[in-house]
Amino acid sequence: MTKPPSHPSPSAATLQVQAQYDTDCQYCRLMRDGTGPLERWLMPLIETDTSIIYLHRDQFWPGRCVVALREHATELFQLDPAVRGRHVEEMIQTARAIDAAFHPDKLNYECLGNLVEHIHWHLIPRYTWDFLWRRTPWDEPHEPRLLSAAEYAATADAIRRQLAL
Amino acid sequence: MTKPPSHPSPSAATLQVQAQYDTDCQYCRLMRDGTGPLERWLMPLIETDTSIIYLHRDQFWPGRCVVALREHATELFQLDPAVRGRHVEEMIQTARAIDAAFHPDKLNYECLGNLVEHIHWHLIPRYTWDFLWRRTPWDEPHEPRLLSAAEYAATADAIRRQLAL
Repeated sequence: MTKPPSHPSPSAATLQVQAQYDTDCQYCRLMRDGTGPLERWLMPLIETDTSIIYLHRDQFWPGRCVVALREHATELFQLDPAVRGRHVEEMIQTARAIDAAFHPDKLNYECLGNLVEHIHWHLIPRYTWDFLWRRTPWDEPHEPRLLSAAEYAATADAIRRQLAL
Repeated sequence: MTKPPSHPSPSAATLQVQAQYDTDCQYCRLMRDGTGPLERWLMPLIETDTSIIYLHRDQFWPGRCVVALREHATELFQLDPAVRGRHVEEMIQTARAIDAAFHPDKLNYECLGNLVEHIHWHLIPRYTWDFLWRRTPWDEPHEPRLLSAAEYAATADAIRRQLAL
């Protein structure tokens, strides 16, 4: 589908994001050698059959995790149905564990791949006290909430204890 | 989890959204009588075993759809595993149909429920010509793109032809 004539032009903020990303797969690199731009944000929590589950280092929404597919694929419908079924189920069991550990008021499940085109899910617990409650996590920017090493370990343990994978 | 002391306060825009939504389930109402606030935005496309698939009337991203669960539930992990498996698979087959009909450059799959707490998926096809390419659909606001009745029908047909549900 080509661009409709009335479609707006990208803002300066959008052009900056577009310029930053190329075709190198940052998730494959993170899984292969634990390096690259994603290492700063993702702390490995547990490995399952089809997925690697990470704690997101921005704990602005307490319990926030990312569930990434172990193999490289960009769209869910490209996967073998059995792999897809297991991957999605592992993602949902991770959501259940976050819910049991942190008791959020809602969970958001997002498979986007806008920056890195490798299947991964943002599991973002939402709270009624959240300054963006009833809006998406992306509607307004926020300062990342970084924790101490001991706090990351306690958060990871709280989720891991609830995971029956 | 209680609010960390440093968490920001909601903006005026966020307070306005919060005030607008109550506990009445707008998806149950739409499915039951085809009325309510969602009717304006969602055009029924096809009914499957566990889901109702809607064309979103905002076709700013050509092919945009919503896949809603037929039963009322707020979180994926609350569902019976068999129902969950079928529902997620129907959602993914809808994404495949959108891809086949419109050839987007990426798809976004989002189960949010921030406004209406009833399981539903936003399937948003993304295009490199999109003014928000490499960002989320929510990062900056846009004017909805409404079509003529004939254009909606053609869009719905294009997706329906690709759906093997």
